[in-house]
Amino acid sequence: VEKYALIVAGGKGKRMGQSVPKQFLLLEGKPILFHTIDSFKRAFSDIKLVIVLPKDHVDRWKSLTAGSEYSTIPLALGGAERTDSVRSGLKLIPEGTLVGIHDAVRPFASVSTIQNAYSEAEARGNGIPVIELTESIRQLDSTHSKAVDRSKYRIVQTPQCFQSDLIKKAYQEFTDNQTDDASVLEAYGEKINLVDGNKENIKITQKEDLKIAEALLKK
Amino acid sequence: VEKYALIVAGGKGKRMGQSVPKQFLLLEGKPILFHTIDSFKRAFSDIKLVIVLPKDHVDRWKSLTAGSEYSTIPLALGGAERTDSVRSGLKLIPEGTLVGIHDAVRPFASVSTIQNAYSEAEARGNGIPVIELTESIRQLDSTHSKAVDRSKYRIVQTPQCFQSDLIKKAYQEFTDNQTDDASVLEAYGEKINLVDGNKENIKITQKEDLKIAEALLKK
Repeated sequence: VEKYALIVAGGKGKRMGQSVPKQFLLLEGKPILFHTIDSFKRAFSDIKLVIVLPKDHVDRWKSLTAGSEYSTIPLALGGAERTDSVRSGLKLIPEGTLVGIHDAVRPFASVSTIQNAYSEAEARGNGIPVIELTESIRQLDSTHSKAVDRSKYRIVQTPQCFQSDLIKKAYQEFTDNQTDDASVLEAYGEKINLVDGNKENIKITQKEDLKIAEALLKK
Repeated sequence: VEKYALIVAGGKGKRMGQSVPKQFLLLEGKPILFHTIDSFKRAFSDIKLVIVLPKDHVDRWKSLTAGSEYSTIPLALGGAERTDSVRSGLKLIPEGTLVGIHDAVRPFASVSTIQNAYSEAEARGNGIPVIELTESIRQLDSTHSKAVDRSKYRIVQTPQCFQSDLIKKAYQEFTDNQTDDASVLEAYGEKINLVDGNKENIKITQKEDLKIAEALLKK
């Protein structure tokens, strides 16, 4: 089955306190988004890529990639919300394939995380990488909060992998905004299958995360 | 009101894949535990310290601290479970004081995290630092899992600060093991008060965390 990676670059990088969108910030001299793309190529040498970029970032992408192999990757234009951006990208994903939807700012998904998620999607419709919580959590209610058993929860990562027919239909029917694609498929009525993610697979959203990413890259 | 910090060093560092207990590993040439102690001194110059150490680690502590100001800090001996270690340390904390119970392997609690937690404890009995989740979470049930609203949850950090009478009584009545001290006080019937923690305040439990800690220290 053909495999696609739909890499979604949202936001304007305002949270990082700098003008360069975070997916274009350099890690050891290479844009984060290039690291992310390379992580998929390491997992599957024949992976097909689609990048979703906000319209304002397309010129920067073109100058960054000019003359490189990255310049041939098809682009879709992002929308106001993450859900709009994913829906825009899914239009470029053929039916009858597998698609992994991935945050552009997660450069450290391991080969096994990526391969496991696609395998599970091929076998059972979807495969979602998760990791255990290493810290206690509390659940808020209207006035206070209560301890909950952290062993009953998992942190959700990407790539969230799907048989493309399923996730395309789910996104056609689904209009509310959600924080991740598994939730969209779940709202459509499907059961979600979890696979092992990797702890280094962090999302770079804040300045501290960039320092952490540099440390992880040196390992 | 007198302020105490009860710094709890558990475990044998097995998870780090090395023989040195993790609280003694060096960050920029200084043991993690010394960084942790110094973070409290930055928040309150008159803080009183008590360290809980497993018996097997006492000799190492004594040779590390010989001749330094750290050597005068009172020690309590840890037990089999974290709960036993905290109970052992609480015997050295006088009634009528404030006590912050803190993981030895959290060297990056900020001055404001520490000060806010003690202030809240002084005003309302307890103060527990928490941060928001930046990633989606799912809750497991017997066969599957479901998306939950991450904005309704908080990650719990330390120092968890208490009026000492309250937490000492809670630990006297309470015998089960719990993952944190707020849960012990909650089981005793008290409402828990949350304050803002800081994202850098990570717990160093795995090899990757040590790399991350080095990066955070260079900021």
